[in-house]
Amino acid sequence: MVEQAQHESGVPSRADALTAISQPARIADAGTGIGLDELRLAARNHGMPLEALRYEVTPAGLHYVLVHYDIPAINAADWSLRVDGAVRRPITLGIDDLDHRARRTLRVTLECAGNGRAKLLPRPVSQPWLDEAVGTADWAGVPLAPLLRDAEPLPEAVDVVFTGADHGVERGVEQDYQRGLPIAEALRDEALLADRMNGAPLPPQHGYPLRLIIPGWYGMAHVKWLRRITVLTRPFDGFQNAVAYRVKRSAADPGEPVRRIRPRALIVPPGFPDFMSRTRFVPPGEHLIEGRAWSGTGPVVRVEFSADSGASWQVAELSRPAEPWGWSSFRVRWLATPGRYELLVRAADDAGHVQPVHERWNTQGMANNMAQRVPVVVG
Amino acid sequence: MVEQAQHESGVPSRADALTAISQPARIADAGTGIGLDELRLAARNHGMPLEALRYEVTPAGLHYVLVHYDIPAINAADWSLRVDGAVRRPITLGIDDLDHRARRTLRVTLECAGNGRAKLLPRPVSQPWLDEAVGTADWAGVPLAPLLRDAEPLPEAVDVVFTGADHGVERGVEQDYQRGLPIAEALRDEALLADRMNGAPLPPQHGYPLRLIIPGWYGMAHVKWLRRITVLTRPFDGFQNAVAYRVKRSAADPGEPVRRIRPRALIVPPGFPDFMSRTRFVPPGEHLIEGRAWSGTGPVVRVEFSADSGASWQVAELSRPAEPWGWSSFRVRWLATPGRYELLVRAADDAGHVQPVHERWNTQGMANNMAQRVPVVVG
Repeated sequence: MVEQAQHESGVPSRADALTAISQPARIADAGTGIGLDELRLAARNHGMPLEALRYEVTPAGLHYVLVHYDIPAINAADWSLRVDGAVRRPITLGIDDLDHRARRTLRVTLECAGNGRAKLLPRPVSQPWLDEAVGTADWAGVPLAPLLRDAEPLPEAVDVVFTGADHGVERGVEQDYQRGLPIAEALRDEALLADRMNGAPLPPQHGYPLRLIIPGWYGMAHVKWLRRITVLTRPFDGFQNAVAYRVKRSAADPGEPVRRIRPRALIVPPGFPDFMSRTRFVPPGEHLIEGRAWSGTGPVVRVEFSADSGASWQVAELSRPAEPWGWSSFRVRWLATPGRYELLVRAADDAGHVQPVHERWNTQGMANNMAQRVPVVVG
Repeated sequence: MVEQAQHESGVPSRADALTAISQPARIADAGTGIGLDELRLAARNHGMPLEALRYEVTPAGLHYVLVHYDIPAINAADWSLRVDGAVRRPITLGIDDLDHRARRTLRVTLECAGNGRAKLLPRPVSQPWLDEAVGTADWAGVPLAPLLRDAEPLPEAVDVVFTGADHGVERGVEQDYQRGLPIAEALRDEALLADRMNGAPLPPQHGYPLRLIIPGWYGMAHVKWLRRITVLTRPFDGFQNAVAYRVKRSAADPGEPVRRIRPRALIVPPGFPDFMSRTRFVPPGEHLIEGRAWSGTGPVVRVEFSADSGASWQVAELSRPAEPWGWSSFRVRWLATPGRYELLVRAADDAGHVQPVHERWNTQGMANNMAQRVPVVVG
């Protein structure tokens, strides 16, 4: 035994034990490298290697994955979904009951709200994403709205809470992963209870047997391993809504909730990489630079490319997305001459949101859509 | 343009440009956090979340992935495999030619030779694995030996070089990923050219359309995106054999080649995790601790468990592996009483290799099979 935490009675309480292992949020000191705690998350979660931007639909295993606690072990035969709370007719569904409902497939780009976090200075300590926490899949399943309507939500319903089967402790709070969503969002035609991804059953790490897909929202809203849907007549004040996923400028700031995905463009890094630095080597000549761009607040209307660290910008040729909630592709020609460069791209959407070139820092490193920078040597 | 590297002629050479972006191997200063370079690798490569040890066959997307350069874009219709070098009858095969050959499926546990690197003090700077760079899959394809024999290797053949389609620069050396294997290993019955993983075509990140599987060897030998097999009458002295994958005790030490997987046991971390520290919380009482163990040098014959940081050890109940090259499962009962613990496991194989509890440091962080330590709070 390493050490014994003692309660007043002499027996440590569960709360004492949880507090001992689960610390408050922190910001890394300036110049501090990534910690072992951040590495433990980076080694188990993963982004999409950026060369996979070549695929319109991200192949299995390349889509980004973020799991807050453990991937739960779920036997579909034992699994059920409960729809309850402020409803007239609570519903319990087994896995086979999903087969009797109308189905739909949607191509949706998902991005983690923490994407870009590890590029902030100083660095908020959490899952240390750079640019790669994204992916696009064909999600198939049962539309949520008809199921919710079958349960007959009360007219005073405000939020709908989605509870997953993953269980853990976060900043001292023991919890099943839960997120609340405004009922108007839950009743959107595109809200989906997905049981298939790219034509196969959901992989365990993507929420088997059932997850929420709510197009346009950052990943934290698409609750995985779904087992309960609860209608509330007040706003949900659970940890993931009230504390974790908020854009806060200081510890005292209650912050704004993280909701829709901000615009982002990423290029397939050109040429070939150095193993360790990931700096790219590109031969001189004309190169076609390709990439994809997306936004949760409206269609992407413009992508710009800079080969001079943002001093000047060139408008890329942009394709309309194949599906309304999937990403758009773009391409731009670059005449590379010998030297060192930093390539940048930025996207804008039709709601007037433009990717910033410089960081908009916040204490939890949320929704940092600062433009991608790709170091390149031409030689 | 950020900076211009100038050659004597005034024009930077390709070699100058590559040297500028691709640095020698280094060791992190003691106490230094993980660098951005290491994080770039950790964000794109990934381990197997340890709760996935529950699966005898690792589901798609959970198996560890290490890609040295980029995942290449390969159109199977344009792809071919060349068998040449010191052979009497060179062979060129297209993707359809594989269908006309006898097939075989093998369950094989693969592990990265760098697994455990980031636990070393000081830390060799490269892909920063902790314990999770492992996975087991059912690999299906065409046995290598009959194909090699069809090409009629010369009697003086020594090594067989496998060349992948991934291209990059590593410590200043531009290269296609290449590994040499002793011809006796290449002629083993179990050497396989795999085009399917767990019943589906190889995913891009696992070597589509074809990779080598050479059971018992660390992952670097299982060359992905295979496009050429070349028989040599001398030992292969390419970068990945002569420089990268060697156990070196100092910079001057030529080192020993990394070959077979050393024994390792890992447990499914019990209880539930804290999001950030990954420390586990376990309620008091009797718990069944389960895990898997493997070795490339012989069957695992013993797994031991310690709940007191290695002061005492308890022998686990070990099952024979379902397949000779897959991992074995084990289980042990632990009576947990309130307090803080560090759980350890270690495996031994029938060749007499035992996992060490303390590190055996080497400059490149290769084959560090030091026992897993799982911090747990019982409360």
